[in-house]
Amino acid sequence: MEKTNVSSQRNITMIMDYYELTMSYNYFKLGKQNEVVYFDMFYRKNPDNGGFVIFAGLQQLIEAIDDLRFTEGDIEYLRSQNVFDEEFFDYLRQFKFTGTLFSVREGTPVFPYEPLITVKAKLIEAQLIETFLLVTINHQSLIATKAHRVVQEAKGRAVMEFGARRAQGYDGAHYGARAAYIGGVSATATVSAGKDFHIPVVGTMAHSFVQSFDSEYEAFKSYADIYPDNCVLLVDTYDTLKSGVPNAIRVAEDILIPAGKRLKGIRLDSGDISYLTKKVRMMLDVAGLTDCKITVSNSLDEYLIRSVLEQGAKIDSFGVGENLIVSKSSPVFGGVYKLAAVEKNGDIVPKIKISENVDKITNPGYKKLYRLVENETGKAIADVMAFHDEVLSENEDLTIYHQSNIWKNKTLYKGTYTIQPLQTCVFDEGKCVYPTYSLDEIRAYSASQKELLWDEVFRLEYPHIYYVDLTKKLLDYKLEMLDTSRQKGGRS
Amino acid sequence: MEKTNVSSQRNITMIMDYYELTMSYNYFKLGKQNEVVYFDMFYRKNPDNGGFVIFAGLQQLIEAIDDLRFTEGDIEYLRSQNVFDEEFFDYLRQFKFTGTLFSVREGTPVFPYEPLITVKAKLIEAQLIETFLLVTINHQSLIATKAHRVVQEAKGRAVMEFGARRAQGYDGAHYGARAAYIGGVSATATVSAGKDFHIPVVGTMAHSFVQSFDSEYEAFKSYADIYPDNCVLLVDTYDTLKSGVPNAIRVAEDILIPAGKRLKGIRLDSGDISYLTKKVRMMLDVAGLTDCKITVSNSLDEYLIRSVLEQGAKIDSFGVGENLIVSKSSPVFGGVYKLAAVEKNGDIVPKIKISENVDKITNPGYKKLYRLVENETGKAIADVMAFHDEVLSENEDLTIYHQSNIWKNKTLYKGTYTIQPLQTCVFDEGKCVYPTYSLDEIRAYSASQKELLWDEVFRLEYPHIYYVDLTKKLLDYKLEMLDTSRQKGGRS
Repeated sequence: MEKTNVSSQRNITMIMDYYELTMSYNYFKLGKQNEVVYFDMFYRKNPDNGGFVIFAGLQQLIEAIDDLRFTEGDIEYLRSQNVFDEEFFDYLRQFKFTGTLFSVREGTPVFPYEPLITVKAKLIEAQLIETFLLVTINHQSLIATKAHRVVQEAKGRAVMEFGARRAQGYDGAHYGARAAYIGGVSATATVSAGKDFHIPVVGTMAHSFVQSFDSEYEAFKSYADIYPDNCVLLVDTYDTLKSGVPNAIRVAEDILIPAGKRLKGIRLDSGDISYLTKKVRMMLDVAGLTDCKITVSNSLDEYLIRSVLEQGAKIDSFGVGENLIVSKSSPVFGGVYKLAAVEKNGDIVPKIKISENVDKITNPGYKKLYRLVENETGKAIADVMAFHDEVLSENEDLTIYHQSNIWKNKTLYKGTYTIQPLQTCVFDEGKCVYPTYSLDEIRAYSASQKELLWDEVFRLEYPHIYYVDLTKKLLDYKLEMLDTSRQKGGRS
Repeated sequence: MEKTNVSSQRNITMIMDYYELTMSYNYFKLGKQNEVVYFDMFYRKNPDNGGFVIFAGLQQLIEAIDDLRFTEGDIEYLRSQNVFDEEFFDYLRQFKFTGTLFSVREGTPVFPYEPLITVKAKLIEAQLIETFLLVTINHQSLIATKAHRVVQEAKGRAVMEFGARRAQGYDGAHYGARAAYIGGVSATATVSAGKDFHIPVVGTMAHSFVQSFDSEYEAFKSYADIYPDNCVLLVDTYDTLKSGVPNAIRVAEDILIPAGKRLKGIRLDSGDISYLTKKVRMMLDVAGLTDCKITVSNSLDEYLIRSVLEQGAKIDSFGVGENLIVSKSSPVFGGVYKLAAVEKNGDIVPKIKISENVDKITNPGYKKLYRLVENETGKAIADVMAFHDEVLSENEDLTIYHQSNIWKNKTLYKGTYTIQPLQTCVFDEGKCVYPTYSLDEIRAYSASQKELLWDEVFRLEYPHIYYVDLTKKLLDYKLEMLDTSRQKGGRS
């Protein structure tokens, strides 16, 4: 598989919580390392109280698993902890992921509690991939989701990702740009992301450029001389309406138009963008520059974009920085990785995590995830989790159940709905069987899958809560486990 | 210089906003590339409305500048943009940073508006380091500052950084752990950071470990067998008070004490930690395990830590995850990089960025930064910016001025104060002249520098606003520039 990103230049195996190693050493010493277990990666809450999440980061997870290895330097470091023995180091030296991993496709809109990734692997293998699996998916899904929200509110206008300098580290900038593109932005300012992921890159000038000349006019003129076909001028270094826009118009008239060129755009990075863009639009139009685009880029997010557009701001495209690249209003995506089952003498024994907090109770068992689409509307009605070996058929009625309340259920009638399996096999006994999709393919797939959702799911405030249900068999099993646990008084 | 981190394994030169290249190409085509300019890196607002920031990330910035290079692959990519010419690519091929860079030392507590880094370099060189300079310093300073806040509220108890899985990318985890250690945490769970930065690593077990055994007791027993000297048990998988703690006590009695060992600790990851830790402490004490430590780790931040300690929670150490590793309550550090002066025929000509927003007006000129310490108390009174060639003397009275109001000033009398230059030369005409400090040295330096600050600066809410002032000469110059600009009606 072609490596498409900078992670291939380094070993990220050690981006790992130390307890993965202390647990693994324990399993190793007990001879439990070949026991087969099932883990689910899921999350409990949509960022920004939104309606869904765009699942992203799978490509980097695949690469990390493929590259998984402990170097001699890593082993030397672990030896210095005086905790593990040489036999364990020999085991780590030859360590590879030989398990099976199912995942929803990158770009899929997903919902709380459903298994986005399911890992069937030997105990230590399942454990040692946990940390980088989570950080990879959590980060990119967070940013892809935020990007979707921002792009949605731009209502067809281009959104450019401008956040590198405020990202949380280089990967925050680099993979953040990738995720933002999946979520729908049109371009990035981050060159490394442009190069590695084939995202269109954009950029013109900073205030320092304008200041480095003796006058704003001179700065604009030199820019127009060198970039006559792509002349976008930053107009707010001194005074947007008194200086910036008049100078931009002069440059259009003095340099560009005589050469048969047009002023492509102006950018505003401060001030009240609603008021200023209306004024600027008028000034440009009066000067005959009706085709000159207006870009704005000052502390924007989905809410401010919605608000200024409602006020009639005259904006053609948005540059969005810190609020997107760190998802400032909701900067954590809380994906978790929980044990769902263990194999015991060839049987799959479901496991459940009980918690006093009902929201934290897990769905037990080795599961599959399906999306149910109504034939009449082409819209998704619900997702449903089932045991992996349950057979669901569109030719039968299907009743699906709330994750903990049996009286909350819904029946779909045969012939009226279509079943779409959401998970696909990514690693089959250690071998990657997942195709490498280009980022444009992932982005287009994401757009097509969002089409399946009802408009109500897209609301920024109090969106419709999409159903993520269980089959009868799975719910019955879960309730029985909870009941057994209750009778034991929570003891084990 | 020894490379101490994973950035040396990859080229981060391309973590760069595209406009740095479009501007640079313009400068190059105009023959302006050898003009010397001065940039300041500073910020305007403390995260979380705190009293100060811990400056961090300098070591990685140094490495990034040292490693700065455009590969043939980078150039090939840039060529594909059809914007630049071959002459420019030849220039990029031999590109190196040959400028001079001053910086405050890593770990220094710093304040809004003061120049943390000052770059004197050729125009293109100063520009091409901008993005990675900002992302490096912004990220690590943010996390070091947050870590300080959390550690401060733990009041001497150990704080461990547990956030990797919720970090924004691998670097978020890796360098975030480094920054958190500078800020005062005692240890990290992230193995790569332990290895590369020599931070103590910690970790014991996850819930999945307990679940993978037939019973909680069996899981604890196997852990005690293998780690008798470092046995910390996670007690909340099933029921903390009814199952977890009783099983931990049994294991102490059955396995550890007979072997002459002690139960080192228990960890709680859910429930009301104030209530539960009081109960758990009593149960452990009754069992004679008075030396068994209690660690808690559930969605903690500085406020929750303060609150539970005020309630008398019995906690010996804290594991802090997502709220620290992304600085959840304030996830952006807004460091900026602004032109301060240009050289013109050998003269240094100060530049100022005017804005309608007074907070965004810059301090012009090639400056130095000093900390003024009161001899009587040993406490810092104020920081002051001066022109680089101004001579400040402790043997004279010194009047320092608010950054924009001449009537707000303060006089320090000769012999009562000490002047500490805060910036030190890091690169001298391209050569790194800064020593490599170990992370422990940086952390200790940070602690010693925090000692200089008055207690009032440390308050979480409405801390004392520390003075960052100007010399008379600098203020006069700045006001004159503002006045000139006003008379020109903002035009340039």
